[in-house]
Amino acid sequence: MPFTLQHLSDIEEIKVLKHRYFRGIDTGDQALLADIFVENVACTYNGGTYKVSLKGRAAMLEFLANSFHSGAAAMHIGIMPEVAITGDNTATGIWYLQDVFIDTEKDDHTFGTAIYTDTYRREGGVWRIESTYYDRVIEVLTKFSKTGGRLSVQRLATTGRKPEERTDISHLIQWDE
Amino acid sequence: MPFTLQHLSDIEEIKVLKHRYFRGIDTGDQALLADIFVENVACTYNGGTYKVSLKGRAAMLEFLANSFHSGAAAMHIGIMPEVAITGDNTATGIWYLQDVFIDTEKDDHTFGTAIYTDTYRREGGVWRIESTYYDRVIEVLTKFSKTGGRLSVQRLATTGRKPEERTDISHLIQWDE
Amino acid sequence: MPFTLQHLSDIEEIKVLKHRYFRGIDTGDQALLADIFVENVACTYNGGTYKVSLKGRAAMLEFLANSFHSGAAAMHIGIMPEVAITGDNTATGIWYLQDVFIDTEKDDHTFGTAIYTDTYRREGGVWRIESTYYDRVIEVLTKFSKTGGRLSVQRLATTGRKPEERTDISHLIQWDE
Repeated sequence: MPFTLQHLSDIEEIKVLKHRYFRGIDTGDQALLADIFVENVACTYNGGTYKVSLKGRAAMLEFLANSFHSGAAAMHIGIMPEVAITGDNTATGIWYLQDVFIDTEKDDHTFGTAIYTDTYRREGGVWRIESTYYDRVIEVLTKFSKTGGRLSVQRLATTGRKPEERTDISHLIQWDE
Repeated sequence: MPFTLQHLSDIEEIKVLKHRYFRGIDTGDQALLADIFVENVACTYNGGTYKVSLKGRAAMLEFLANSFHSGAAAMHIGIMPEVAITGDNTATGIWYLQDVFIDTEKDDHTFGTAIYTDTYRREGGVWRIESTYYDRVIEVLTKFSKTGGRLSVQRLATTGRKPEERTDISHLIQWDE
Repeated sequence: MPFTLQHLSDIEEIKVLKHRYFRGIDTGDQALLADIFVENVACTYNGGTYKVSLKGRAAMLEFLANSFHSGAAAMHIGIMPEVAITGDNTATGIWYLQDVFIDTEKDDHTFGTAIYTDTYRREGGVWRIESTYYDRVIEVLTKFSKTGGRLSVQRLATTGRKPEERTDISHLIQWDE
């Protein structure tokens, strides 16, 4: 800082890229997600009860398509970006995540926050996510049925993978207890 | 993309415009809302249990003033914008909404998210909302009394329309069940 | 508005400054918070059940370090900025806050929103918060044990001040009832 016009343009592009990621996962928009990551993307998500660790776009898309399945209702809000351009085609970003994840099949309700640390790479003029990492700040677990709420809209029920369409991603995510 | 200086300036103006909209509705600030929309604004909001459909600034302001009434407590957060300048004086925007709406008169608690698709128009140098549309992603309904919470601050109790000040907006909003 | 390149660069710097503030308080990152405020910062926070009123960076840091203690779990999201550059080295900002604060020692759960009105000052090329003020829009109080949730991650349990490290800040914050 301060920022040049090129920096500000790049930062706006990177913000929109990340916004599309969050819109894509919560609405189950696989077409939108297909062009978000570089081919050799690396992902590590440290939740309270899970740890995701994977490499490669195909694994990332398979992980997302199975996690945001037809029994889920999800809100993932990525906000308060701190983006820095580190080279002609490289950048870093810190983001604050707030999420609600309801799994109606397991009756699980998760509310949490996390801090993302990302790197981005521009390839052929297009910014993509190169690596993405988060660590939880808070996580609160409840049974959804205990909250007294009822789901009147659940987008992923339509757009998410049905049980018979899902694949095994147990090698990508490790659950506690 | 990438963005010119004019684009970036326009995008910042449009972001601030939309931010003012959300601040205006939740705080019941009718003066702030008065200059947000073009004269022939079009609005369609598809909730889980309601559908809003209206045309014109007068109808929009009447809808908002009656919906954000003295018995309501509201949080509407518009985030993760994807704004595109489509002409000298035209633009589009996608936004992610998170909202909490408590109606103390009906004992209703609604938590939800939605994706906005807007168009904007610049008139006399000022960006305004030309059309605004949203579709729910998730919506969770509860009775507020069942949540165990108590409202210690409720801004709209002061700024929102009292029962005797409200007008009939049943032609603008359609309720399920 | 419209914005010059200098304006847009300054606005981006000020957004990042405020984002760092929120990341700093919720993760208990005292090193990050140390360079956020001008020496004679003024702070007034009007909550539903509390009022914070203080002057000076030392008081601000002491207030934050004791409020975000080892028994707390906190989410403070500052979004929808309306930043205006008012001089070569001065600016104002309006922000919308959403917060969740769980005090496990008192079994308190607070959910709320507020509108911030800030001023910023650039000193030696670095933007800092000069004054910060907020007024609640909504506030909902519950006992955390009544929500049925269990904390599976609580960052401040590690980074926040332990009981024996805390100091008396009762002159900086006034509690109702």
